[in-house]
Amino acid sequence: MKIGLEEVAKPLLENDNIVILSHEHPDGDTLGCAYALKIALNRLGKKVKVKCADVPPKKYDYLFKDVEDDSFEKEDLVVTVDVADEKLLGKELQNEYGKRIDISIDHHASNKIDCRCSYVDPDSAAACEIVYELIALMGVKIDKMIANCLYTGISTDTGCFRYSNTTARTLRMASELIELGADSFFINTVMFETKSRTYMRLEALVMDKMEMYFDDRCCVVYITREMFEKSGSNENETDPIASKTRQIEGVLVGVTLRERADGSFKVSVRTNADLNASEICACLGGGGHPKAGGCQVDGPLEDAKAKVLEVIGKFLG
Amino acid sequence: MKIGLEEVAKPLLENDNIVILSHEHPDGDTLGCAYALKIALNRLGKKVKVKCADVPPKKYDYLFKDVEDDSFEKEDLVVTVDVADEKLLGKELQNEYGKRIDISIDHHASNKIDCRCSYVDPDSAAACEIVYELIALMGVKIDKMIANCLYTGISTDTGCFRYSNTTARTLRMASELIELGADSFFINTVMFETKSRTYMRLEALVMDKMEMYFDDRCCVVYITREMFEKSGSNENETDPIASKTRQIEGVLVGVTLRERADGSFKVSVRTNADLNASEICACLGGGGHPKAGGCQVDGPLEDAKAKVLEVIGKFLG
Repeated sequence: MKIGLEEVAKPLLENDNIVILSHEHPDGDTLGCAYALKIALNRLGKKVKVKCADVPPKKYDYLFKDVEDDSFEKEDLVVTVDVADEKLLGKELQNEYGKRIDISIDHHASNKIDCRCSYVDPDSAAACEIVYELIALMGVKIDKMIANCLYTGISTDTGCFRYSNTTARTLRMASELIELGADSFFINTVMFETKSRTYMRLEALVMDKMEMYFDDRCCVVYITREMFEKSGSNENETDPIASKTRQIEGVLVGVTLRERADGSFKVSVRTNADLNASEICACLGGGGHPKAGGCQVDGPLEDAKAKVLEVIGKFLG
Repeated sequence: MKIGLEEVAKPLLENDNIVILSHEHPDGDTLGCAYALKIALNRLGKKVKVKCADVPPKKYDYLFKDVEDDSFEKEDLVVTVDVADEKLLGKELQNEYGKRIDISIDHHASNKIDCRCSYVDPDSAAACEIVYELIALMGVKIDKMIANCLYTGISTDTGCFRYSNTTARTLRMASELIELGADSFFINTVMFETKSRTYMRLEALVMDKMEMYFDDRCCVVYITREMFEKSGSNENETDPIASKTRQIEGVLVGVTLRERADGSFKVSVRTNADLNASEICACLGGGGHPKAGGCQVDGPLEDAKAKVLEVIGKFLG
């Protein structure tokens, strides 16, 4: 049975020293939730620590640049935001807090966190949608800083309002947050419209060599060590290339083979329509989500490609 | 002096045979306006013809798939939507209607159309925002078909709510249009997440040859007839390339030179920060918006590039 949001607000209002936990490899939603909630609770006179296993990528700096961590001896309350599973806190934070989470605020239907106050709403495109309503419910005025945090979560978790999770409510909230001062253009520019020059060069090299198979229903691209060298790019920048393979008209499955230093290949699979990327990758010892999966195969390139195409052929029938 | 929207509604309500003109090389906004307005006027019992110099790209088919052109001898009223200049109607339509436009509905500050009823609102991110209010003002209920047209214009002219022209009002309207039935996920997938194979090949060819100027603050790319031939692509697919030039970290102005059949170049300028694309293009006889402008310069390529770079140099200081 789903609890009401006022049951989440109550313990937050009644306690003074609060720890908020984000998931490891933090994204805009978990960080946006954590800092929006921290700033709001600070306004109510609470002391709040935000904790995360990993240092957030630099692009998120604006979310907490004027925010200071509070100090207290022992917390009264532990809250997780956008964390579907205790394991996703990272080992250290899981050991410290995993068994004594009081409140879980999340939008993943798969949420497994066992705590006395679990508020999970899979209809929210971002957990920040929930935190938005929670902050309003606690009677805190949403200022520019909070608006920036909430907008960031909502925008990043919907691919800037493109994904199928985007609802009328998502856009209405985004509209209100702009009215409340969110720097939407700055945020979207940083999150979606900024690519490094080295990435751009790599992308051009890779896409120039794209190959089509199975009546153009499968697009294959590969990223070799030589391409990294020529472009000045590296492994950390390759994610958007995998998405591009799926964007091509008529393509049902897009494959990216990325050569590792040891000559093996990291394979990323992206699918459209009903094709399950996770099932495809499972046949090659990997896994993932319905539309995005991964696995590893041995080189050289031609062998790796043949092995992946053999599996895909079975799925495309 | 700006007229009120009721002064646009009045002649539309008082006349029966109406021609709506879109600009050449039509985009989502001019087509969205035209068909939203046509469907609304049809609901009011009016006969409406939509005219455009070019056949719209196939991806826009859903905007008018169930819409039939009406027939009448002579029109009572000529309306342009999202057309900043009579020249942009294309030669034939300019000759036929250029001197007898009754109503111009537009959001380009540079609008030059001389007519008795000119409604230009540069604060609207898309001309579809104006048409949305106009339709409501005329008392027509916005149904799914009209909502799809208006959402398309608003979404495409804001790069799916990423550009700086996006306001709280833009997002509120988009939210309302989803509630009124707009298929936002379908539309955004078609408009932003689907690229033709020929476009992908062209993009790779073009980006592979990108050039940087003025301490990497200016990115220049060019699209030659040879690249069109090699990729199988054409003029209708080049828009997203212009946007890419501005995405590179540190770039303040991105320039795309597209070779025309006659050897001249269509120049697209995209800017970041405070740089005004429209002012840059005005120096070369063109115009546009603050962040996106266009002009034409004579070839060959090296001359065209030099001419554009000379102007940009003055702006970059």
